[in-house]
Amino acid sequence: MARPTPLSGFPEWLPEGRIVEQHVLDVLRRTFELHGFAGIETRAVEPLDQLLRKGETSKEVYVLRRLQEDPDAGPERAGQLGLHFDLTVPFARYVLENAGHLAFPFRRYQIQKVWRGERPQDGRFREFVQADIDVVGAGDLPYHYEVELPLVMAEALTALQEIGLPPVRILVNNRKVAEGFYRGLGLTDVEAVLRSIDKLDKIGPDAVAELVVAEAGATPEQAQACLRLAAISGTDEDVVDRVLELAVEVGARHELLDEGLGELGQLVRAAQDRAPGVVVADLKIARGLDYYTGSVYETVLVGHEQLGSICSGGRYDTLASDGATSYPGVGLSIGVSRLVSRLLGAGLVRATRAVPSAVLVAVSSEEDRHRSDAVATALRARGIPVEVAPSAAKFGKQIRHADRRGIPFVWFLGPAEAGGTADEVKDIRSGAQEPADAATWTPPAEDLFPRVVAVG
Amino acid sequence: MARPTPLSGFPEWLPEGRIVEQHVLDVLRRTFELHGFAGIETRAVEPLDQLLRKGETSKEVYVLRRLQEDPDAGPERAGQLGLHFDLTVPFARYVLENAGHLAFPFRRYQIQKVWRGERPQDGRFREFVQADIDVVGAGDLPYHYEVELPLVMAEALTALQEIGLPPVRILVNNRKVAEGFYRGLGLTDVEAVLRSIDKLDKIGPDAVAELVVAEAGATPEQAQACLRLAAISGTDEDVVDRVLELAVEVGARHELLDEGLGELGQLVRAAQDRAPGVVVADLKIARGLDYYTGSVYETVLVGHEQLGSICSGGRYDTLASDGATSYPGVGLSIGVSRLVSRLLGAGLVRATRAVPSAVLVAVSSEEDRHRSDAVATALRARGIPVEVAPSAAKFGKQIRHADRRGIPFVWFLGPAEAGGTADEVKDIRSGAQEPADAATWTPPAEDLFPRVVAVG
Repeated sequence: MARPTPLSGFPEWLPEGRIVEQHVLDVLRRTFELHGFAGIETRAVEPLDQLLRKGETSKEVYVLRRLQEDPDAGPERAGQLGLHFDLTVPFARYVLENAGHLAFPFRRYQIQKVWRGERPQDGRFREFVQADIDVVGAGDLPYHYEVELPLVMAEALTALQEIGLPPVRILVNNRKVAEGFYRGLGLTDVEAVLRSIDKLDKIGPDAVAELVVAEAGATPEQAQACLRLAAISGTDEDVVDRVLELAVEVGARHELLDEGLGELGQLVRAAQDRAPGVVVADLKIARGLDYYTGSVYETVLVGHEQLGSICSGGRYDTLASDGATSYPGVGLSIGVSRLVSRLLGAGLVRATRAVPSAVLVAVSSEEDRHRSDAVATALRARGIPVEVAPSAAKFGKQIRHADRRGIPFVWFLGPAEAGGTADEVKDIRSGAQEPADAATWTPPAEDLFPRVVAVG
Repeated sequence: MARPTPLSGFPEWLPEGRIVEQHVLDVLRRTFELHGFAGIETRAVEPLDQLLRKGETSKEVYVLRRLQEDPDAGPERAGQLGLHFDLTVPFARYVLENAGHLAFPFRRYQIQKVWRGERPQDGRFREFVQADIDVVGAGDLPYHYEVELPLVMAEALTALQEIGLPPVRILVNNRKVAEGFYRGLGLTDVEAVLRSIDKLDKIGPDAVAELVVAEAGATPEQAQACLRLAAISGTDEDVVDRVLELAVEVGARHELLDEGLGELGQLVRAAQDRAPGVVVADLKIARGLDYYTGSVYETVLVGHEQLGSICSGGRYDTLASDGATSYPGVGLSIGVSRLVSRLLGAGLVRATRAVPSAVLVAVSSEEDRHRSDAVATALRARGIPVEVAPSAAKFGKQIRHADRRGIPFVWFLGPAEAGGTADEVKDIRSGAQEPADAATWTPPAEDLFPRVVAVG
């Protein structure tokens, strides 16, 4: 077998990188659980017709067939399975399937891989890990969850700053504000305006204005009003006042606008209190997906804005429906792989070592290996990660093995007749060696497990 | 959307079941890390030609195609991707791909989903989680790792007995013993004998004897000798003596037999010391896969033997090879989904609750929700999982909501002017209510997070 090469779009990490990713996942899980979100996992596959319900993502789906399946079984989709491309579609199905066993509002987090057959590029993968939180109600879902969920994500992402994640800005908007404003202006094809505004960062205001005219049937003046709305942003309630002033000036009054501004104001107030500086009201945030009906969220890493949003989501009035009941929800999804890939690729973080072991127990002879094993067992019983040397090589070689693996301590056994009283442990970084008892010795807390730390 | 039904072979758990699975995974991860195994994850896909190298599993592979891919692109396999059906093939590829960045012997654990397009049946799934540990060397790998790895698994599985996993028996054998014995008898088609013996539990000794005659060209006497070898088992070194006696009696002496017995004796001795009663030498364990070259392992849950092996593996002299270097390894793989499915299905374990939250903070009015949020934040800051009531309903209704979700404590705020000094917390199981300060109150340790406990 020749040396294989990586598959573009399918990221894998070396053990040190995996420690970083695992740490990120642990921090997310802990934050979500502290907020009462229950963890679930769904299968990786969904029936293809479910995956294609929304239409727009169809090009990205990986379809499965069994190798021995009859390839001429026909092109019909019935029973065909595809890999999920997000965690929202499977969650909606899970809620419907298990509604009778869940207590609503149901709070869940879900951390899994998803797959999209897209062209790989920087920060965009074909296989990647997402970490989602959602709250879903049966029949209704109060607005306060639209305030709560981005603040949970703010807490999780802020916790990651400790290991070197740059600060984040969670950009929030409210569909009702945009829709109310457009309708107040007299524009009825709200979707077309949103789709155009969504391209602002990519194509710039002039091109967007032309699009709004061409696609949404707006006058140039209406298009300019839409652009002026999109230009408003800020971290305090002043934002609400500025939108209102603009609406009055351009004559874009609508009941939905007032409702949306009331909601956005609540979110901004709560954020100022609980996550100051993290949440920014940004009226240009549109989110192309047509199922959002209230708050929408995007998140940028400060200094890495060109990476795109690393945590997005919003409110949807119908996550799922079984005819009798509809299930509204609000949720956000972190692109963990995109985040970790940037943390590692930009050299922002590192693990203090690539292996769990804090101690390598040296072996003086293969006949005596069981004594080294016994020391390892005693240390592990007190929660210290340990491995035993691969061979009874010269101690210098055993120390170099520890060094190569990044293990900070090497344990040397005294003679058998000393019964462990003559054992010594060496910190191979400083060279300091001292007597140690396997029943009581403990490494410094910072050396116990590999840690993830900011670089520089 | 009509209520969807589960897909056969793709297990999913309700939140309570997921807590059990997550706990199992946490115990495995902790045990593996205490033993110095580094966690890695590989992508879910491999090039199809790599997946099919071994041939025998070809019928089980799920092949991927992008929905928009040209279906007439031709039947050639070049570039086609399939979902991995185990974690050994991807690990071998990872080792080759990253050999320059790994320190050997390389110890890794890997916990991921795998997929097989098999007919689903009890304990056999199309999508399931495996937890693997392997040690792989560059060029060589000492025998002592074949002793160490099953003992690590014994420790992990024994740790799970605390939550209700039945005791396990790790059945061990050594290919060299079997091969040496067969060759000593004069049988040269060792694979054919192994394949026949592997069917012992399924078809019984008489049918196996016929198979050995028919497939391996044995005389009826040679077949009987093979069956007598397969009947030997035990937990101490007596096993080695009994094999030797049999070999002398039937004239089956071979250098490979002696080497294998020496190794098996070492394993049994170490196991008696470090995991008494857990490891059983069982000479009928054959493991059909032809790449095992030394120790082989299978594991049964005592009282659930018909479930099949829940943890299997062995020694392989060539996990991978890049021409210049070959990478021998030894590893075991736990079928986590099979294990969890039995734990849940047989009602052996339960989670103490289905949600992380220990406390529901009641809300007296929506205007006061921010005060309840502040209590929740104070409790979380001290590591207590908390959620806030969904609505300012009557307190009886809020308590019922906590009860339905299994949350043990409900927090009631005193009047705003009391500044938190008049707060009270109710244990809704006992009804006991007492004054509590969000800055200091802590639930009993057993209520802090959901725990997984044995039933009955």
